[in-house]
Amino acid sequence: MLALRVEKKRLSVKNIVKPDQPDEALVRVLLSGICNTDLEIARGYAGFIGTIGHEFVGLVEDSSESKLVGRRVVGEINAGCGKCDQCRAGDTRHCASRTVLGIHGRDGAHAEFLQLPAVNLLPVPDTISDEHAVFTEPLAAACGILERVKISDSDRVAVIGDGKLGLLCAQVVALTGASVLLIGKHSSKLRIAERRSIETARPKDATKRARQFDVAVEASGSASGFGLALELIRPQGQLVLKSTFHGKTELDTTRIVVDEISIAGSRCGRFSPALDLLQKDAIDVDSLISEEYPLANGVHAMRRAATRGVLKVLLRP
Amino acid sequence: MLALRVEKKRLSVKNIVKPDQPDEALVRVLLSGICNTDLEIARGYAGFIGTIGHEFVGLVEDSSESKLVGRRVVGEINAGCGKCDQCRAGDTRHCASRTVLGIHGRDGAHAEFLQLPAVNLLPVPDTISDEHAVFTEPLAAACGILERVKISDSDRVAVIGDGKLGLLCAQVVALTGASVLLIGKHSSKLRIAERRSIETARPKDATKRARQFDVAVEASGSASGFGLALELIRPQGQLVLKSTFHGKTELDTTRIVVDEISIAGSRCGRFSPALDLLQKDAIDVDSLISEEYPLANGVHAMRRAATRGVLKVLLRP
Repeated sequence: MLALRVEKKRLSVKNIVKPDQPDEALVRVLLSGICNTDLEIARGYAGFIGTIGHEFVGLVEDSSESKLVGRRVVGEINAGCGKCDQCRAGDTRHCASRTVLGIHGRDGAHAEFLQLPAVNLLPVPDTISDEHAVFTEPLAAACGILERVKISDSDRVAVIGDGKLGLLCAQVVALTGASVLLIGKHSSKLRIAERRSIETARPKDATKRARQFDVAVEASGSASGFGLALELIRPQGQLVLKSTFHGKTELDTTRIVVDEISIAGSRCGRFSPALDLLQKDAIDVDSLISEEYPLANGVHAMRRAATRGVLKVLLRP
Repeated sequence: MLALRVEKKRLSVKNIVKPDQPDEALVRVLLSGICNTDLEIARGYAGFIGTIGHEFVGLVEDSSESKLVGRRVVGEINAGCGKCDQCRAGDTRHCASRTVLGIHGRDGAHAEFLQLPAVNLLPVPDTISDEHAVFTEPLAAACGILERVKISDSDRVAVIGDGKLGLLCAQVVALTGASVLLIGKHSSKLRIAERRSIETARPKDATKRARQFDVAVEASGSASGFGLALELIRPQGQLVLKSTFHGKTELDTTRIVVDEISIAGSRCGRFSPALDLLQKDAIDVDSLISEEYPLANGVHAMRRAATRGVLKVLLRP
């Protein structure tokens, strides 16, 4: 089968053997999405070797859970050991022995087939198209904000970064009734939020509103975004870090201490709130799709996904 | 009156006019304590000009609150505007227009007299000596940890830094029943905690227990302490930043995001829990007193307070 692989720091589409772990479900991938994490992994982040990709919708071809066979599914990306406290509490996301689809110890979704434990798979309601369902994972990550901080409808929230993740975060937070300001550098991307009645600003204009936000969500993946988030937040406000940065970030910690700011790291979210939002058509994901390529053109697609101004790039096996 | 002042980046004991604001209480200082913040201010931090010092116990000589006159008091250091939301909610610590005793816009405690609004003053029970009462402010700062994070008796807590603040934080946290590890570099300081049955370790030995702590308290005031705190904390653990650092800190934010760590800045705490602990004799502060000098020798006392191995230095006007 075809798979988009990172090996020896080189990215290529290869013909590899179809996976065949008897204890896991086999999923035929219908559509997969390229995430910034894929781009970072291709640059050497986390030292991953194998098939990349962790956003997908697919059809279950084989599983010990017979009711899943033939179903269209999405899949939570963390596969836990099943034995530790975290796993037994039903949350594999912080299992110390976990593998992560296309990120850590497990081949990923930019392939004709993938495998995951049956427990990771969630059937997709028929009313959700493949093109929407493939956003379940990044939308769940955006919903994960609400697992980490309480946001009420009287809160002022700044979301920093107008990329795919920032646009999803801004929309999710806006659904709480909070007043949201999305901060970014790209008119075309900001316009997507504006169409959902979300206020937008350029970073230099946003700094005029220093210390005015109850919550700031950093989704730009840049050190300057983190600095801006710290600047915008009010004393005793909450900052959510959604993006990882390459390397070290210089930080003035004085403000965190003196103004007693809280910072919460946030990674993966649960899928079921995301599927609910997609089913209600509450989030504009169509505007986030920039391009689609056959999996065979995966290397070119990755190059496109790394191009300034391009949002989600999809791969179809 | 005599006062220890920072002017034009120079530290000196000067004879200045006794303060005379009719709307504030006048306090004769009995004893004041030198804090690391005093040392930082003398080095130019925060650009403060005036009398330094914010830890004190004193006698009220004059106040519109007649029941305070003649009482021995300690004083909360943030003086609010009295009108903003924060002040009206009874918490002046984050009033945007606040002045802070000996730190920001208000002469401080290393002087024969100081002034504060009467509302900031708390009478000291007779059973608490001056030498103990002068620790109310830093002990309140240590208690402030418990305003920012929940610590239960099953938690494992690492406190980083064996200075005055770290030793107070370790003792306060130990009273919750949590298992505490104090990490520092000075045998004589670590021994103070050991006498209270608190486990101690050197930084290099502590790293063997990476990812094992539910809570880490950074009280060393060094970037390496912050890095160590991040290393020790478990996924989804909580890090409390008690100390400010000079300048910028280099930080690997990936761990914060991937392991969904929470960071809470913590500055001033409320005085009343600290007075309760002093009254119960629940905290060893005697061991934290290194030296005492007359206020007239304040410049020398500051030099001693900055010397490696020296803990609290007191000034007596």
